[in-house]
Amino acid sequence: MPRPIITLMTDFGIADSYVAQMKGTILGINPDATLVDVTHQVPPQQVARGAFVLDEIVEAFPESTIHLAVVDPGVGGERALLAVEMGRWRFVAPDNGLLTNVARRYAPRRVIRIENRRYFRATVSPTFHGRDIMAPVAAHWSLGVDAAEFGTVISGRLISLPESKAEILDDVIVGEVLWSDSFGNLITSIEESQIPPTGRSDLCIECAGRTLRGLRSNYSEGNPGELLALIGSSGRLEIAVRDGNAARVLGISNGEKARVRVPSEPSTRRERNDR
Amino acid sequence: MPRPIITLMTDFGIADSYVAQMKGTILGINPDATLVDVTHQVPPQQVARGAFVLDEIVEAFPESTIHLAVVDPGVGGERALLAVEMGRWRFVAPDNGLLTNVARRYAPRRVIRIENRRYFRATVSPTFHGRDIMAPVAAHWSLGVDAAEFGTVISGRLISLPESKAEILDDVIVGEVLWSDSFGNLITSIEESQIPPTGRSDLCIECAGRTLRGLRSNYSEGNPGELLALIGSSGRLEIAVRDGNAARVLGISNGEKARVRVPSEPSTRRERNDR
Amino acid sequence: MPRPIITLMTDFGIADSYVAQMKGTILGINPDATLVDVTHQVPPQQVARGAFVLDEIVEAFPESTIHLAVVDPGVGGERALLAVEMGRWRFVAPDNGLLTNVARRYAPRRVIRIENRRYFRATVSPTFHGRDIMAPVAAHWSLGVDAAEFGTVISGRLISLPESKAEILDDVIVGEVLWSDSFGNLITSIEESQIPPTGRSDLCIECAGRTLRGLRSNYSEGNPGELLALIGSSGRLEIAVRDGNAARVLGISNGEKARVRVPSEPSTRRERNDR
Repeated sequence: MPRPIITLMTDFGIADSYVAQMKGTILGINPDATLVDVTHQVPPQQVARGAFVLDEIVEAFPESTIHLAVVDPGVGGERALLAVEMGRWRFVAPDNGLLTNVARRYAPRRVIRIENRRYFRATVSPTFHGRDIMAPVAAHWSLGVDAAEFGTVISGRLISLPESKAEILDDVIVGEVLWSDSFGNLITSIEESQIPPTGRSDLCIECAGRTLRGLRSNYSEGNPGELLALIGSSGRLEIAVRDGNAARVLGISNGEKARVRVPSEPSTRRERNDR
Repeated sequence: MPRPIITLMTDFGIADSYVAQMKGTILGINPDATLVDVTHQVPPQQVARGAFVLDEIVEAFPESTIHLAVVDPGVGGERALLAVEMGRWRFVAPDNGLLTNVARRYAPRRVIRIENRRYFRATVSPTFHGRDIMAPVAAHWSLGVDAAEFGTVISGRLISLPESKAEILDDVIVGEVLWSDSFGNLITSIEESQIPPTGRSDLCIECAGRTLRGLRSNYSEGNPGELLALIGSSGRLEIAVRDGNAARVLGISNGEKARVRVPSEPSTRRERNDR
Repeated sequence: MPRPIITLMTDFGIADSYVAQMKGTILGINPDATLVDVTHQVPPQQVARGAFVLDEIVEAFPESTIHLAVVDPGVGGERALLAVEMGRWRFVAPDNGLLTNVARRYAPRRVIRIENRRYFRATVSPTFHGRDIMAPVAAHWSLGVDAAEFGTVISGRLISLPESKAEILDDVIVGEVLWSDSFGNLITSIEESQIPPTGRSDLCIECAGRTLRGLRSNYSEGNPGELLALIGSSGRLEIAVRDGNAARVLGISNGEKARVRVPSEPSTRRERNDR
């Protein structure tokens, strides 16, 4: 049997010892777990950003991976903690919307509200359920404990954040910049599946007062310093600068509107018939 | 036998390759070691901060874990390097105060001054004992080598930093802000055990010209933006802002005085009898 | 057989999920791989910096370690992806100069241009070959697949960056500051092997208008705040400030010239005879 994988995503940063405390707790219960950091740089309390990150990574991980996600501004309060089976994976997270994006693509198969103190740390701090409840539950789950042991199987829906997917209005797709990555690439809410598969070299992409013509296939298609639009590795429209930083060049970050205009000529239909 | 755990805490940052050089060295000696980063963001040469971090994490790690701690401004100089057994764990660190806080809670059972070059890297750089002495010693230790092999068992005391615990003066506990974490929570030197267990909703907490009334149990008790005092997950008094950053709101960081005033009424006794 | 080690070095930063996507991909193919982060803070697209980092770490890792290095501004373009055997190690990287420094010390024994889609992710994004080609190839290699399976064995030379080694002109060695590390130590292009082994306490080191006399052996040789020159742990001349930050004190970073003047007296010969 392969060693179980537990990923960790938090808003704890890497300067403090909080992440290490979670890892020590996990390894104390299951020393054979393979721990993988997703990121600990989710901006403090930004559940929505965490929900996107989780959605970006799940496909890359093998079946049964446990994704332990702690962006939990309500720690110690009323929000539930959940163990969830979705897609090929397992999740331990607060019920605060952090699983929204994954749950839209993979209907949860089983949702357990975590309640059984037998699987908690002996002492539970009201300010660190990541260490005292979620980490030990993830570790026990990785050892083969049935999730139903952790608490009550519930049938209600997970708490969901508002949809941020782009809207399609006639011949224009209206989205927004969701975040800029460490390269300064601007990741938008416009998904590849929303863009017509043909005629992509004729599209007009508008953002921050600039208009770009056509989708490129990669960052090196274009001259150094040139603004480009392309489909990034997570299947979203991105705006980038070759060998540069689009967020800095455009002076924008998240929230900025982004639009894709589809040319009205019937070229789309024609090309589709050609295949 | 479970795979041995070696944690790494340094002031090396994560942009350089120093941490990876230590990890490669360890894995070359014991490929079965599980390596866990505690943090590498201890501010350069701040031994006292490292001592607090070590103290925060030990409890979370299982028996026999080796904590390799390298905040070592005296590298290449006179300071000794130690292999220490304390509590349920093992430590490899310079004798410069880095083990102060853990040693106050767990008297060292065995202290070895590391001297045996047989366990060092073949070439020892005078500027990187973390890689060339401490990492290989930790790796050999994790393989089962007896610590006495590494050098001379010594009986003297470890070098100790000045105590930073808060003082109790009549009805006021006087401490200071030790650091702010990545959320901006201000961690103080006032320990939970120093605060009377009852009447906590009547306490006055003073810091940076503000007075807060009562301890809350978690960050979400209070209105968004409100300043709160509570006992954090390491058992210290913290000052926080709900969904915000207390360090920024108060414009302070470490060194700022923090006081807890205990109300003089006999309510404490009464509540205690109620239990 | 020990568990295979795969290191990861990228310019992806740690705020995004890109590194985790690579790790999930590797573990999905070889769950027994031990993953070690070298650094993900190579400045975006700075291939030359990545080449130095790789060179710094290889010696610390055991035989057969696979070094997966992704600083790849040309992703999706014409540049080749390579699997290379050099020294005791294996490398998966774009052919853009990233292997320059290691290849100068260890002639590549075997170079394979990666072409065999059988070892790729089923869908290959044109913007993320790190995840979709290099990570899976590294994982399959760690499982024992022969590198020749990945594509065509080629005999040409690797793409090479311009040499940045210091020049020796009569009695002066002329180099430059390559980067400053997280301590503010200024790492130069002057290598220990270029400096005469004797008479080192008489050398004059010039940088940023300052002249330092003699090499020290470690950072603590000198008074707090004093500028020092020494040979760092990677065998390069460094300029440092005891308990301080030389980059800040001198107000410089990479590109600044650094010179070592060798005194003209015949003391060198004499001392050499003494050994």
